[in-house]
Amino acid sequence: MMSASERLSIFALGGLNEIGKNMYVVQYADDIFIIDCGGKFPDESLLGIDLIIPDITYLEENRKNIRGMIVTHGHEDHIGGIPYFLKKLNVPIYATNFTLGLIDLKLQEHRLRRETKLIPIHSESKLELGRVGVSFFKVSHSIPDCLGIVFHTPEGNVVHTGDFKFDLTPENNQSTDIHKMAQIGTEGVLALISESTNAERKGLTPSERTVSGHMDEAFHRAEGKIFVSTFASNVNRVQQVVASCIKTNRKLALLGRSMVNIVDVALERGYVDIPEGMLIDASAVDKMNPEKVTILCTGSQGEPMAALSRLSTGNFRDVAIYPGDTVILAASPIPGNERDVSKIIDNLFKLGANVIYGSGSSTGMHVSGHGYQEDLKLMLTLMKPTYFIPIHGEYRMLHHHRLLAESVGVEKGNTFIMRNGDVVDIEHSTATQTRSVPAGDTYVDGMGVGDVGEIVLRDRKQLSEDGMLVIVITLSKRDRKMISGPDIISRGFVYAKNSDDLLREMNQLVSKTVKDLHGESRQWNVLKKSIKKSVGEFVFAQTKRKPMILPIIIEI
Amino acid sequence: MMSASERLSIFALGGLNEIGKNMYVVQYADDIFIIDCGGKFPDESLLGIDLIIPDITYLEENRKNIRGMIVTHGHEDHIGGIPYFLKKLNVPIYATNFTLGLIDLKLQEHRLRRETKLIPIHSESKLELGRVGVSFFKVSHSIPDCLGIVFHTPEGNVVHTGDFKFDLTPENNQSTDIHKMAQIGTEGVLALISESTNAERKGLTPSERTVSGHMDEAFHRAEGKIFVSTFASNVNRVQQVVASCIKTNRKLALLGRSMVNIVDVALERGYVDIPEGMLIDASAVDKMNPEKVTILCTGSQGEPMAALSRLSTGNFRDVAIYPGDTVILAASPIPGNERDVSKIIDNLFKLGANVIYGSGSSTGMHVSGHGYQEDLKLMLTLMKPTYFIPIHGEYRMLHHHRLLAESVGVEKGNTFIMRNGDVVDIEHSTATQTRSVPAGDTYVDGMGVGDVGEIVLRDRKQLSEDGMLVIVITLSKRDRKMISGPDIISRGFVYAKNSDDLLREMNQLVSKTVKDLHGESRQWNVLKKSIKKSVGEFVFAQTKRKPMILPIIIEI
Repeated sequence: MMSASERLSIFALGGLNEIGKNMYVVQYADDIFIIDCGGKFPDESLLGIDLIIPDITYLEENRKNIRGMIVTHGHEDHIGGIPYFLKKLNVPIYATNFTLGLIDLKLQEHRLRRETKLIPIHSESKLELGRVGVSFFKVSHSIPDCLGIVFHTPEGNVVHTGDFKFDLTPENNQSTDIHKMAQIGTEGVLALISESTNAERKGLTPSERTVSGHMDEAFHRAEGKIFVSTFASNVNRVQQVVASCIKTNRKLALLGRSMVNIVDVALERGYVDIPEGMLIDASAVDKMNPEKVTILCTGSQGEPMAALSRLSTGNFRDVAIYPGDTVILAASPIPGNERDVSKIIDNLFKLGANVIYGSGSSTGMHVSGHGYQEDLKLMLTLMKPTYFIPIHGEYRMLHHHRLLAESVGVEKGNTFIMRNGDVVDIEHSTATQTRSVPAGDTYVDGMGVGDVGEIVLRDRKQLSEDGMLVIVITLSKRDRKMISGPDIISRGFVYAKNSDDLLREMNQLVSKTVKDLHGESRQWNVLKKSIKKSVGEFVFAQTKRKPMILPIIIEI
Repeated sequence: MMSASERLSIFALGGLNEIGKNMYVVQYADDIFIIDCGGKFPDESLLGIDLIIPDITYLEENRKNIRGMIVTHGHEDHIGGIPYFLKKLNVPIYATNFTLGLIDLKLQEHRLRRETKLIPIHSESKLELGRVGVSFFKVSHSIPDCLGIVFHTPEGNVVHTGDFKFDLTPENNQSTDIHKMAQIGTEGVLALISESTNAERKGLTPSERTVSGHMDEAFHRAEGKIFVSTFASNVNRVQQVVASCIKTNRKLALLGRSMVNIVDVALERGYVDIPEGMLIDASAVDKMNPEKVTILCTGSQGEPMAALSRLSTGNFRDVAIYPGDTVILAASPIPGNERDVSKIIDNLFKLGANVIYGSGSSTGMHVSGHGYQEDLKLMLTLMKPTYFIPIHGEYRMLHHHRLLAESVGVEKGNTFIMRNGDVVDIEHSTATQTRSVPAGDTYVDGMGVGDVGEIVLRDRKQLSEDGMLVIVITLSKRDRKMISGPDIISRGFVYAKNSDDLLREMNQLVSKTVKDLHGESRQWNVLKKSIKKSVGEFVFAQTKRKPMILPIIIEI
């Protein structure tokens, strides 16, 4: 009989019940494999937070057993946490050529290049790490060079799909390797870990190729400059724009830091093909015949500092949008970004641009990189897993993915819908989910990682809603009489100039509170509490607001 | 020749380049008519603001000429500002029976009932106010008893559509009066003011009637309790739920304050028909056979305090959702609310509910109350206006509405796309847009109306992102030496307990700044500025954050 430590364990440190910060772990006995290390952008409730990354306590505690991190592809929700991870745990990173290029950009920025071990792999690589063999298969997605992973463990084979769709007519030969996948399924899959992003959507994802017809048509109709905004990492979409430029004899300028950087990586590493002389500098755009130039730019998600947003308000240094120019939004807004994107569309129309965007119905300028229900069922059918772990999605997506799995033959009870940290253990071919490891959100704020927690956020929330009142009084050490103050300073509460009466009444109230308590207590905390209470109640009765009240007592 | 004051003027004080706070003005010479007075819910950038209402400076300055406010229908974006308006300007309010019922709810809440003059009208009413005749026509929308308005002025007829769609098979006989509209068009329309909400959407809005088939089907399939969440004011949708309850022999409970209140108004005034004995109290739900009860609840927009949200987290006192219950979301999320609604859907699935919601494709459980492109074109065709003013929409919607108008024969140049406050003047049958009146957002925060402005919001924003540092020093009046402090208090910046070093270094820095400046300046402002600068630069270098720095100097 095997010892307990011979078991196979699978869990997520991020990516379950959320879209973002994907990080999965496959562990066989003492061999730990990390899959991806993504970031997630905070919603508006996380005031001031720049990025969320996974809590890696478990990995820090088991650092000696980590055999490496394998990165499936180069999207932010799969690589965004890597620099922060590496500052705590220096492990070798395995990824394909293009993915490594994007990781390398991050390492440069964080000055981590020298000490990091990057190991290039490709779909035919085979690794032996500890007692586990690792092999790969190609999948299609909205970024080049994506992998699915097979872990060959003594307990059985575990497959992680990465992000995927089935695209039979991809751009740039980025096709799913269906034959290899069928072979993996034939050999037997103990557990399948598969992404769930579009598990709610019926049908099959349209091919990336379908975009090119619409793109060509828009280019042929356009009379002024053409702006195309898309994700910089969607290199195949970039290639389609290049193709449309060739057909209409237009030059191409790149706007936005990530567009310039990522196209650079793609050019260097051979993932995009741009004819000699087609690329021009942004500063040259305004001097050219508008009908002979296209601008590829960042900002399709409405990011206020990105190129498209600045173009839409006329705040871009080198390039301006004129009436009659065409602007193509070749990306869908990610949920939560709709309002920002709409604002930009309004501003573009105000500039007189012809804006091609999805208003209810699709314009054909974007297709999803994530498989719809039929794609997901095809994956499940090819792999025929005994156990199934849906990942990469909100709860409702995982739930629908389970129904899909059961519809193609995964046994009821063999699907595990988990939370981050929940562990599936497989031993003697039997899977159970009874334990969990630490998991959660780590907040990045400026240069701080993990130093902003619930208390700081709660304060920020109160400050953001009703502002604050700082109340300073100076007491004599000798007799505890007030010798200066109260000074009341408000910020974010009411405009002080228009609130003389309110401030005067508060002032009197504080003086009275100090006087009433005099002698009764020599403890500042009691005095502070009294001031907070009396001022808080007064302010709420007068204004229905609850500013933070901060009494400060100086003793002299 | 007429004097300048004989002109006809049309403008908006809210509703242009936005969805919300609708308020329009039609003025002929000295007769001012106000149409609607809506509120708008703030987006997350307006920290702490509860409601936005129109700036009514123009009306306050011309109060003696106001002949009344005519309210087209009872949605919040058309009546939400009325109590605040009435506190400044007491004018008679004209509205239909059901609309008056909803306005009355607000007046009760704000204790304005006694002094307000409410005048019931209906589609056949005719008013003569000053030199202007006012008549009406029925339109269909997602709330009962909606009106379009015709102003018969000496300069010509002005038509305001209200919110509308063409519904040939409405519930409850709430049909558009097409014959009357055709007659109005035949008599001649100088200017049409028409809503633009769905000007981007192709086709014709589906009829409200289409919902009932889907509702019946879901009711017939359901095995446990059924929860239906919709807008309380969508009384026809409520009637459909009642009909489905009758067919499946279910009782009906109402959850949520606005659901109870508005159904009450609808019952009292005869806009909904609920069989004797069908309504049960919420407290009775849990004792009943689940297959014999339906719950109608508020919260379809994900509002965190509304019934559906509290049900989804098991926090409702009387009623709980059990595995196998069905939850129907019979409303679409308004842009900006998608994320909150998704969170609720996830939680409902976690409870084991069968959730019927729109995931990409429609479930048929909701249709829009606003006309699509073909509806808008039909209105334009019936009215044949000389001049056209698209209202009630973001810029892109107004823009598309103009294109629709031109496609059905409105002359190019005769459409006015305006901003709030921009005035179209029509004189001698000629329209020009050259002047504007004051217009803007007035913020309601707690009990304050208009006391929170840009400065307070800017402070809240800074506080929300990086918190604050209060720095108190006490100086001797005699020699300006520091006799106490610096005391540094931080909130929302970093968790102080983990930031000893940072706070100590700041402390030293402030002491040094005070010492360096000693004698050089006797002005506190200079000292405060120096502290702000030195601490600000230090903190940014250390943390990449920019907390609000608030130096306080006490002189003793």
